[in-house]
Amino acid sequence: MAHHEVPDVYNRLWTPAHEPVLSIRSGDTISFDVRDAADGQLDDYRQGDPIVPRDASRSYPLRGPILVEGAQPGDVIEVEPLEFQPLGWGFTASRPGAGLLPDDFTEPYVYKWDLTTGDTTEFLDVATIPLRPFLGVLACTPNTPDPLPVMPPGDFGGNMDIRDLVVGTRIFLPVGLTGARLMFGDPHAAQGDGEVCITAIEAPLDGALRITLHQGRSIPSPQFQTAGPLQPGIEDQGYYATTGVRPDLLDAAREALRTMIDHLCFTYRIEPHEAYILASVIVDLKISEVVDAPNWIVSAYLPLSVMHR
Amino acid sequence: MAHHEVPDVYNRLWTPAHEPVLSIRSGDTISFDVRDAADGQLDDYRQGDPIVPRDASRSYPLRGPILVEGAQPGDVIEVEPLEFQPLGWGFTASRPGAGLLPDDFTEPYVYKWDLTTGDTTEFLDVATIPLRPFLGVLACTPNTPDPLPVMPPGDFGGNMDIRDLVVGTRIFLPVGLTGARLMFGDPHAAQGDGEVCITAIEAPLDGALRITLHQGRSIPSPQFQTAGPLQPGIEDQGYYATTGVRPDLLDAAREALRTMIDHLCFTYRIEPHEAYILASVIVDLKISEVVDAPNWIVSAYLPLSVMHR
Repeated sequence: MAHHEVPDVYNRLWTPAHEPVLSIRSGDTISFDVRDAADGQLDDYRQGDPIVPRDASRSYPLRGPILVEGAQPGDVIEVEPLEFQPLGWGFTASRPGAGLLPDDFTEPYVYKWDLTTGDTTEFLDVATIPLRPFLGVLACTPNTPDPLPVMPPGDFGGNMDIRDLVVGTRIFLPVGLTGARLMFGDPHAAQGDGEVCITAIEAPLDGALRITLHQGRSIPSPQFQTAGPLQPGIEDQGYYATTGVRPDLLDAAREALRTMIDHLCFTYRIEPHEAYILASVIVDLKISEVVDAPNWIVSAYLPLSVMHR
Repeated sequence: MAHHEVPDVYNRLWTPAHEPVLSIRSGDTISFDVRDAADGQLDDYRQGDPIVPRDASRSYPLRGPILVEGAQPGDVIEVEPLEFQPLGWGFTASRPGAGLLPDDFTEPYVYKWDLTTGDTTEFLDVATIPLRPFLGVLACTPNTPDPLPVMPPGDFGGNMDIRDLVVGTRIFLPVGLTGARLMFGDPHAAQGDGEVCITAIEAPLDGALRITLHQGRSIPSPQFQTAGPLQPGIEDQGYYATTGVRPDLLDAAREALRTMIDHLCFTYRIEPHEAYILASVIVDLKISEVVDAPNWIVSAYLPLSVMHR
């Protein structure tokens, strides 16, 4: 098994047209650095600075494509994260027109995180967030005649933002093209299920992956296996949870989140735009029931061990 | 603080018109037995018997209403489950036209569980399910001019089917009427987030609750606080998860569940209708991301420690 450094090339679309940057064999490992989803445009931002529009054309710089020898459409690529090390800082931003509550938050806000303090980072003086870094975007390039933007995920994977794809998890991705053409990026240092405000703790990182080809096994969309409990340490003190009860799951999720934001503001004396950020990085959205027609319930779970009081 | 036995009376609607069965004070405890949601109609069912239509008018026998002295609309009732003991047997049933996959499963199926074997119960020869009993239905009676059926939950609570309302969790319910008029039932011995096939392990139980009135605090819908980790023991070996990627959360949930059913059938050599039952009692539906427009991701999580191989 060989180890490879991923060349310092970025691509920003899903298309078979990209020139491969590397070719590897099943079982090989790769290491890389990868910029945050805003391509470093907030490197110099300091808390409280005016928020200037970002250049969207620089969003989602991805590493790859990487060819895996022998991979054919219908196969499965397994990705095992071996190491993810966030690099110095991170940001979480809400912006008008995006996120789960676009009508509630009409002003942009950015929170800058100090990631030089070990395995946790502080949110104001109210919470200590354990870092659980992962790649928000990861996929084998889909078989698409037209280039696809990185933003929406698809059955092929891509911008999945699944917060359990951490070191130790085995990730299974469908192969759409000969050679697989693996690409990845959008590193996150921590995130709650849902990523409600539109961003996680967005942070550049150094990483390493092992890539394994499974032939003769097909999956319709990504699957994964975690190594153990999802939130070791994080859930030791239990959760405080709010509910949303609505005939539509999206509306139910919004109601649960709105009530959680109220709870955070009241209990921890923070502002709604701050609570929205905190929820995006630590609160989990679960589907409690989706069968008691016509009303479904989504619950928003806050792990209490991260809160200071 | 007094302790009360709840009288052996059942009601089957949400309405202020029911005669109260008991009046208690804040801090009192109550104990009770409560029938399963089918009112014992499957008591004599044996695995493989023909499935006969049930009398729907007997569904959801609830205990109560119980008056809490001093409770006023806008207050909060806290319910602390102190003990839940399932009584002997349970069932999980899928039926045509109900559940998350009504078009996939058009034949009824019933699985009968032996709950006399301690803290776990066996599913075929493939899984050992830890019991985590809770009440599927729990609420203060809403202020409704017309009687409401028990089936759909509402902002007042009711048929919530939230699987974390176990012993140790503190449950907060909005009060809609003078005296609160607490009612509860629909006991479940175990359930996954989503309750996908329409039933949990439905089982009669003996239980005890502590009831506390909180005045001067209002909540728009139920909230709860768990005592610790959600799945102690259950998640020690991690999870296998499938994904659904769709522009609608309900469709995404269906896709994740369909793929999980395929995974269960392939990996554990069971039939789809059996996998649907197993998923309903142990697989959790989580909203992985709901912001990467226009496609959302729901993931279905199977805890591996319950599976035999």
